[in-house]
Amino acid sequence: MKEVWKGNIVHAPRLKELEVLEGGYLVLEDGIICGVYQNLPEEYRDLPCRDHGNRLILQSFADMHLHAPQYPMLGMGMDLPLLDWLQTYTFVTEARFADTEYARNVYSALARELIDNGTTRVCMFSSLHTDATWVLMEELEKAGVTGYVGKVNMDRNGLPGVLQETAEESVSETLRWLEGCHFQHIKPILTPRFTPSCSDALMAALGDLARERGLYVQSHLSENTGEIQLVGQLHPDCREYWETYEKYGLWKDHTLMAHCVHSSPRERQAMKDAGVVAVHCADSNVNICSGICQVRQLLDEGVWVVLGSDIAGGAQLPMNQVITASIRASKTRRIMDGSDFLTVAEGYYLGTTAGHRYFGAGAGFAPGDALHALVVDDSDMPQAAAELNPVQRLERLLYRMQPHHIREVWSQGRCVHSRDE
Amino acid sequence: MKEVWKGNIVHAPRLKELEVLEGGYLVLEDGIICGVYQNLPEEYRDLPCRDHGNRLILQSFADMHLHAPQYPMLGMGMDLPLLDWLQTYTFVTEARFADTEYARNVYSALARELIDNGTTRVCMFSSLHTDATWVLMEELEKAGVTGYVGKVNMDRNGLPGVLQETAEESVSETLRWLEGCHFQHIKPILTPRFTPSCSDALMAALGDLARERGLYVQSHLSENTGEIQLVGQLHPDCREYWETYEKYGLWKDHTLMAHCVHSSPRERQAMKDAGVVAVHCADSNVNICSGICQVRQLLDEGVWVVLGSDIAGGAQLPMNQVITASIRASKTRRIMDGSDFLTVAEGYYLGTTAGHRYFGAGAGFAPGDALHALVVDDSDMPQAAAELNPVQRLERLLYRMQPHHIREVWSQGRCVHSRDE
Repeated sequence: MKEVWKGNIVHAPRLKELEVLEGGYLVLEDGIICGVYQNLPEEYRDLPCRDHGNRLILQSFADMHLHAPQYPMLGMGMDLPLLDWLQTYTFVTEARFADTEYARNVYSALARELIDNGTTRVCMFSSLHTDATWVLMEELEKAGVTGYVGKVNMDRNGLPGVLQETAEESVSETLRWLEGCHFQHIKPILTPRFTPSCSDALMAALGDLARERGLYVQSHLSENTGEIQLVGQLHPDCREYWETYEKYGLWKDHTLMAHCVHSSPRERQAMKDAGVVAVHCADSNVNICSGICQVRQLLDEGVWVVLGSDIAGGAQLPMNQVITASIRASKTRRIMDGSDFLTVAEGYYLGTTAGHRYFGAGAGFAPGDALHALVVDDSDMPQAAAELNPVQRLERLLYRMQPHHIREVWSQGRCVHSRDE
Repeated sequence: MKEVWKGNIVHAPRLKELEVLEGGYLVLEDGIICGVYQNLPEEYRDLPCRDHGNRLILQSFADMHLHAPQYPMLGMGMDLPLLDWLQTYTFVTEARFADTEYARNVYSALARELIDNGTTRVCMFSSLHTDATWVLMEELEKAGVTGYVGKVNMDRNGLPGVLQETAEESVSETLRWLEGCHFQHIKPILTPRFTPSCSDALMAALGDLARERGLYVQSHLSENTGEIQLVGQLHPDCREYWETYEKYGLWKDHTLMAHCVHSSPRERQAMKDAGVVAVHCADSNVNICSGICQVRQLLDEGVWVVLGSDIAGGAQLPMNQVITASIRASKTRRIMDGSDFLTVAEGYYLGTTAGHRYFGAGAGFAPGDALHALVVDDSDMPQAAAELNPVQRLERLLYRMQPHHIREVWSQGRCVHSRDE
């Protein structure tokens, strides 16, 4: 069925440029975008039209790095150094997901909160538990979240006997997990936790699997200096961290690498050359004192940058807050070294289009793409001194949006959440 | 009337130490605290007891620096350099408050949002408009907010003819304003905007007024380097910024100075010697790229530090977010120079007790003080991996609290907001 939406459309087809259609038109056919227009073309004038009035029609968000089993510890343990944080909270919390009933309870709440906050696409870490990972995929699918989920691989430096596999278990469980992934909108992605967690044998097996089955890969890279040192000790034959992934065929097109806070010029060049995607996790980097990522430099050099909430190193699940955290981090870098900060337009692009492209989408609301969109009502915000334009309203929403402002969430062409019903 | 509350009490009597009474008791007489106890003393056992069950009883927040007339521009203009931001947004927005009806509309919403988010004490800038300032004081009083409000003084570097007074007008309007301040819980505070906005004659008149009437003073200090240079040019006889206030009798006990980002050791010593209070505004300092305040240094040197949202340079009105923004800023400083970051306990102290002390309150829930408290229900937060203690719950609330979690707000011994009714 074809239909027309009328409303205030703001999308981000390019990094530095918002496209604004005040009182514009979005034409849909069965949830697929036919086009966006300031003036409705003749051919569409007889179609049924939904008038969204003064509401904004925005792109939905893509959260490209987060740890689902850390959701129960969101906003806690922030005073601890990284290793204590891992032992006291993270591994203990992740170990609970051996219990699929607990997993069901937590993951259904997480999926709901993602949708409530307008996140419709994700690349997500599960725990190492195969069954709980299926539960996670099911719950995301049910709530209307789309994207990739990975069962974590981890055969060293975990909690032996509690949260750690052997290399053989890790590979056989990964195969079993892949067999059971029959979800429409949630696909598997290979997920070696990070180099310190995976033996050479495991990395090699995962690299083979990635190649044989054409699977994407997600992991962590150059998050903090201690980690980088450790990786150097584990792989004395590798000059830089990224080479420990490259050695086993895991450094390739669409490989997602979270953080990249301390990546050298050579590492950044290797990312660009291979088509590796950097997931900037600003809040997490500050909370656990990893460093302030040089996002401007990555962008200027042509690296593909996307954003992640990285819960629970990050304490903010809503992507509008992740976007403003990224802007704030870039202003911190400006204070430190004078580099240009991320503008609101750039932040919006990174939290939307840059992520959606990972899944094959085009630029902004692109013809042929399934709709990923939010209908937003900001009428309860304080009365401004003068009439606001849609760009000002977008900025205010990125800084201040709460779930009740999001009236409808559209994911893969379907309305998955509505507060008006 | 005497009564007993039972619940999970967490308060901050000292900077580095939370006091936790799990299933503890708070005894009140007509809204005045008689004491907090882990075990209820014999003498109170026959009093009526309100059992708050598993809820938390927390201190309410004190927002020690914010600009009420900038509330309509909250979360906007963040990409602009300071001077454009002032011209495009701030001064234009503040000028609207010549209209008292507009002021009523905006200020009633602001007062409500403060209470909804648990802020019961404030030190606040109004605009230069006398009538709108009374409206602000009235609306705060009506909503249950207590504290100080200042009509702004500004006779240069504003918008001449639109948002600027002559020195004579500024003084006579200040006198007229003071005459009309008959509010029970909202008191006047003298408010020269900052040195660049006030002629020598005006500063001198305000200094006289402060001395004659025993009034407190609030202003800005050493926020950014351009401002400091300008102040140096305006007052070539002063070695440092603070001396421009000291010269006119405005640098004295309880003088609130917002920012202090670039204060020298000598300026910090002068603060300590005079009893001047530093208002740390972390979010604002990052948003407008002022710098990262060395809060740890101020604290170590014994300067009295409190927190401010500084809307609309700050984009976050809820003080729990201001507290976590302060923690994050301190972690940024740790990344920069290795200094110790603010712990959750310290952040909670700075956002509560440190501010409440300005109004004569004691340490934490102190006997003899009127109750300023929140009753908080976090039962809808994700199920943790293990039972949480009250300190973990406090941390999670500081990072993630939303208005609906705050079930009751008590201000100056009165319940001013309840979601259970």
